[in-house]
Amino acid sequence: MKIAIMGFGVVGSGVGEVVTKNQEMLIKKCGEPIEIAHILDLRDFPDSEFKCFTKDFNDILNDPEVGVVVETMGGINPAYQFSKSLLLAGKHVVTSNKELVAAHGTELLEIARERNINYLFEASVGGGIPIIRPLFSCLTAGEATDVFGILNGTTNYILTQMFQKGETFENALRAAQQKGYAEADPTADVEGHDTCRKIAILSALAFGDAVVTDRIKTEGISKITAEDVFYAERLGYSIKLIGHATRAVDGGIYAAVFPAFVPKTNPLAGINDVFNGIIVKGDDLGEVMFYGRGAGKLPTANAVVADVVDAIKHKKVNIIIKWNEYKEENQSEGAMQKYPYYVRFKGATVPNISGCRLVTFDEDANKNEFAVISEAMTEKELDEFVKAVEFEGCEALGKLRLIGE
Amino acid sequence: MKIAIMGFGVVGSGVGEVVTKNQEMLIKKCGEPIEIAHILDLRDFPDSEFKCFTKDFNDILNDPEVGVVVETMGGINPAYQFSKSLLLAGKHVVTSNKELVAAHGTELLEIARERNINYLFEASVGGGIPIIRPLFSCLTAGEATDVFGILNGTTNYILTQMFQKGETFENALRAAQQKGYAEADPTADVEGHDTCRKIAILSALAFGDAVVTDRIKTEGISKITAEDVFYAERLGYSIKLIGHATRAVDGGIYAAVFPAFVPKTNPLAGINDVFNGIIVKGDDLGEVMFYGRGAGKLPTANAVVADVVDAIKHKKVNIIIKWNEYKEENQSEGAMQKYPYYVRFKGATVPNISGCRLVTFDEDANKNEFAVISEAMTEKELDEFVKAVEFEGCEALGKLRLIGE
Repeated sequence: MKIAIMGFGVVGSGVGEVVTKNQEMLIKKCGEPIEIAHILDLRDFPDSEFKCFTKDFNDILNDPEVGVVVETMGGINPAYQFSKSLLLAGKHVVTSNKELVAAHGTELLEIARERNINYLFEASVGGGIPIIRPLFSCLTAGEATDVFGILNGTTNYILTQMFQKGETFENALRAAQQKGYAEADPTADVEGHDTCRKIAILSALAFGDAVVTDRIKTEGISKITAEDVFYAERLGYSIKLIGHATRAVDGGIYAAVFPAFVPKTNPLAGINDVFNGIIVKGDDLGEVMFYGRGAGKLPTANAVVADVVDAIKHKKVNIIIKWNEYKEENQSEGAMQKYPYYVRFKGATVPNISGCRLVTFDEDANKNEFAVISEAMTEKELDEFVKAVEFEGCEALGKLRLIGE
Repeated sequence: MKIAIMGFGVVGSGVGEVVTKNQEMLIKKCGEPIEIAHILDLRDFPDSEFKCFTKDFNDILNDPEVGVVVETMGGINPAYQFSKSLLLAGKHVVTSNKELVAAHGTELLEIARERNINYLFEASVGGGIPIIRPLFSCLTAGEATDVFGILNGTTNYILTQMFQKGETFENALRAAQQKGYAEADPTADVEGHDTCRKIAILSALAFGDAVVTDRIKTEGISKITAEDVFYAERLGYSIKLIGHATRAVDGGIYAAVFPAFVPKTNPLAGINDVFNGIIVKGDDLGEVMFYGRGAGKLPTANAVVADVVDAIKHKKVNIIIKWNEYKEENQSEGAMQKYPYYVRFKGATVPNISGCRLVTFDEDANKNEFAVISEAMTEKELDEFVKAVEFEGCEALGKLRLIGE
């Protein structure tokens, strides 16, 4: 089977490496050798062991021997047009491109289904952690109630540094950049956009209805302070950037991205550094967690190549992955969703507060601060709660949701 | 699609419940309704909502409309003959029967492959945790180096009680029996036979060669003492019953079951009560962990029904699950495998010991005891090490392997 790679960056070159290195084993798994026939990239790689580079997409599109194309370009354009053209031409497409799957997955899956081929994207969420396939082929007998987890390694590394070394957000970010875990412009990671795309994909798989990312309320970790870390530790929590999708009270799907207090008793709280963990929860199923390195060249490339193997094993069979196209009324704004909240207040004395379970003081630092863990409430109820406390002369300094209790 | 259930015990009746309750959702997933046409069981269930009981296997075998049969009988006979006859007759078989898959999986998979149907067994390991499918369809691009984990909930519950409540093994076992987690005859769980069957299955999937269970050295947890728990805590470890399969130094596959010291930094150490956790490790992949409730009626039934859905989606397509048939030379005895060991000694003073990293004393209880963590060594080297220490006037009281450092 001849394949092509579009985009020879970190993951794309990893795919080249894995296919070359594991050729013998892959022959056993596929029943035939995998040959990389074309590599599309606008850059030159004169020192590469591969000699099949091209800058012309048509070399791939028009090669009748190419049956599977790996898309590791990232971004919407031109990846979307390329992928669509290839699927329409009857070629399987395998991708790690979460942005594209979140934006156009519904349509690309539909084209693949019509042509009895496959559009596969295991590597788009969780790097080398199998999560896409378990969601559509193992956890199918009962409906999930919640999918939530740590989906971004960069932010988890930063938060781990803040917890374990007492670093400020800024210093922890710099450390992540020095280690190559964060990009020069860290916005997509730090502000939660990467997590947003991933939870959109998981949500569609788990609940069967597409959601759109621009309606997923997304909050990053740049506002987490040393005080938040202090109170979290004292109250028995960790802070994690969480993507959460759930069947909402109003019947729609509610997806959101937010930094959250996670109790130390929840396995997500123990997931540190660049690791990811995803929990799928269902009435009958209880909780199942998937854990591992959520990024990195070779783990992600392994996931891509495993999809290539599956495409070759299903040459003329569509592996049914399906969700309904986006409808506005199916995506909930979450107005009725209740979470417990952590709220930090400025105030010398604690007023008589109803609606909260736990209160703690920053006695050591004597900052005239306290923090509360509220009962589960809607955002509107939270606003009222905060107003009531502020009416007593305190000032709210920060708030975070709780998840995983 | 008409299906049949063979064995209406805990899991079998759970399958009936899940199919009935989730009918509407299952129609969406399969594209057709699932109808339970026959339930085979030697017992009578006069109060059941189902009215299709039979005591005659031929009612299922000879019903041309039955396309998928669920085997939740357990044991080798008659489950083996039944499953084989059904597959030969072109009916998909879905099972939770780890004993049968470990003993005859190679042959049953081969028959399914020849007939372009499926023999599926996601529920045989890890209850509701997806692990079988990830192993054969996600983690396929690079070879695993190790698969290890907590595969039995009963023993993990007992060990958790011993750690968290200071219970003796006997009392913890009684508590497990009272909760319904352990059977009246707990041998299969406590002595590791259940874990042995499960690691045999995972080993075949991960490494591609069948192993036989009677050559898997299997040690249970009945000899773990309060002192072992004490030293584990003091040295920063937990004790877990581990199934481990690895590509051995001599090139074969080495599989074993043993209670082990697991460092608290390893995610397996935090898995308590009846939960299971399975780690797959590979050079490129790093570590991936799967976690959840490893048993229980509805989680396991969910896994079975998900396989039924997959069989219906692959009516005339074999989902290639394949390993080579057992060859004696492919299963290693592990003579060259090295593990670090914990060894507990009786002795008033610690002799000058080489070959160990950590030593600790039971100072509080003043029992004239100490424990060491050795360097990684083979079993033969361990024997020599122990002899050398005993030569100095000490007596070895117990030893356990370390894993997951």
